[in-house]
Amino acid sequence: MNSYREKLMDEMSRFRGVLNSYLSSLRDNLGGPEDLIKASFHLVLSGGKRVRPFILTKSAEIFGVSEDVSLPAAASIELLHNFTLIHDDIMDRDEFRRGVKTTHVLFGEPLAIVAGDYLFSIVFKLLVDNYSEDVASRLVKVFAEASMLICSGQTMDVLPSKYINDSDDYMEMVYQKTGALIEASALAGGVIANVDSEYLDSLRVFGRKIGVAFQIADDILGVIGDPRVTGKPVGNDIRNGKRTLIVLLAESRMDAADKRLFHSVFGRMDAADEDISMVVDLFNKYKVFDDARNLMNRLYREALDALRTLPSCRAREYLEYLGKYIIEREK
Amino acid sequence: MNSYREKLMDEMSRFRGVLNSYLSSLRDNLGGPEDLIKASFHLVLSGGKRVRPFILTKSAEIFGVSEDVSLPAAASIELLHNFTLIHDDIMDRDEFRRGVKTTHVLFGEPLAIVAGDYLFSIVFKLLVDNYSEDVASRLVKVFAEASMLICSGQTMDVLPSKYINDSDDYMEMVYQKTGALIEASALAGGVIANVDSEYLDSLRVFGRKIGVAFQIADDILGVIGDPRVTGKPVGNDIRNGKRTLIVLLAESRMDAADKRLFHSVFGRMDAADEDISMVVDLFNKYKVFDDARNLMNRLYREALDALRTLPSCRAREYLEYLGKYIIEREK
Repeated sequence: MNSYREKLMDEMSRFRGVLNSYLSSLRDNLGGPEDLIKASFHLVLSGGKRVRPFILTKSAEIFGVSEDVSLPAAASIELLHNFTLIHDDIMDRDEFRRGVKTTHVLFGEPLAIVAGDYLFSIVFKLLVDNYSEDVASRLVKVFAEASMLICSGQTMDVLPSKYINDSDDYMEMVYQKTGALIEASALAGGVIANVDSEYLDSLRVFGRKIGVAFQIADDILGVIGDPRVTGKPVGNDIRNGKRTLIVLLAESRMDAADKRLFHSVFGRMDAADEDISMVVDLFNKYKVFDDARNLMNRLYREALDALRTLPSCRAREYLEYLGKYIIEREK
Repeated sequence: MNSYREKLMDEMSRFRGVLNSYLSSLRDNLGGPEDLIKASFHLVLSGGKRVRPFILTKSAEIFGVSEDVSLPAAASIELLHNFTLIHDDIMDRDEFRRGVKTTHVLFGEPLAIVAGDYLFSIVFKLLVDNYSEDVASRLVKVFAEASMLICSGQTMDVLPSKYINDSDDYMEMVYQKTGALIEASALAGGVIANVDSEYLDSLRVFGRKIGVAFQIADDILGVIGDPRVTGKPVGNDIRNGKRTLIVLLAESRMDAADKRLFHSVFGRMDAADEDISMVVDLFNKYKVFDDARNLMNRLYREALDALRTLPSCRAREYLEYLGKYIIEREK
């Protein structure tokens, strides 16, 4: 393991401990019906990397804001993320997430819908209860606008045949569905620190680019990730028929014969490992992975450039590590 | 028609026109995918009495806040209300509301879930975009806390056998599910007007009591409303097996024989009109309607008492009319 990665993992793991205690005690102090509390916090307290709160806290720390000050907003953005996951899982009929059963499978769909709504309400309650009125109001704006974008991205994702025709559409969807909230995480750190608009812009650019790069890394791993590391079958996204960046790039380039070959495998859950290898070879022939990696690396460099306009310090270093980890990770 | 009622209806109708234009132009200026916009605003722009925004605007007007200043918050609380209706209709599998098909029936469940989430995001965006940071932050708190209560009330409603055992539980559920948002409407008007905490408390009491009285009136009409006026079959709630205040009061009082008789009809969609009459007679025997009406009238008087601690003016008069209308209405 690289040494930067070890340092990052140690710090993220320490931070997770702090955040998880905060979230547990938040749950314990809510007065609602116990079924609502259980359903709302089932996913929240079932693990998760806590990337968004980590980015928020480190972004604030760059400007001298201590962790206990940024913690409520960090918890808030994690709840916002979990609210979208609970509702997404209902829409996609997913049965597992983070290795546990999804909220609607365990608690039924009606309660899962309310659980998401409840978390979303707490998102804003946490902000106004923990920050001065000016900071709270600006954070509410950042979070509300991010959720609007997530809803837009989710709509595109729910109706791909209408909204996702090429890799540009796809990148827009990824920005809205995933990038916007990571952008909001970085930006919120700066808002808490009350920094000027140039710094806010840099945080925004860092968050947005690293957020989109994160999804591209996922898309690459979804096709050629090592099953022993990812824990998912090789070519998982191909078998599942997921129209990711990789597939959209390939489709725009393949000749008719190769396209036929590809579609004889794509979306077939029973595809053999050799079929998957054949698809990977096809994609390599059209340099799809190269181009996806180039795009991801470009986003990473632009994210880093933005980050490096901020004061140099330990917290900034962790965000640099995180960016590097996101594009180098194997799962 | 009584003259107070005519005045109220005229003013509410005028206000609805203003609010509906605001909501239409809000919709037209959103940049999201058209399916999301259509699904989100389908119910919003399909009618509705606009009681909550009316209360908000009149509460602010009592303290000299003009309608154009309170309008964004009034729109916001109506969107919050509609967000909860869209999600409730999914949970309850209701197919019609306000005379039109529900959002999930028209647009599918996934889009209906996102549509609600989108409206809920806009709720907060409207507040921070239209008010000073201090007022916005206080409004966010009022709205977020109201949504948390609505989620609690909805959970009780989804799991009645666990949470609603007697009329006290039921009244608590009604406060959370319906009263809390009407309370928030009145309170928000005072927050916009920046009034002191005594006035805020009076607004809160007025909203809460009138909100709960509103639901009791509904429960009475659900059993003995005139079908020609309500547009619903006579004894609708009895046929649907709805455990409202009326039923909970009756159940706590009936002897074993009457209880058996009642349960031979309750929840039977094919019950004859004579069966319904028999149930109404039973309820009368135990003075259920009298007691429900007494409770409603007491809430009304307490609401009026609170309202009358506020400056006397035209706007306050409309709220008095509204309170009177709520308990006297026939549909």
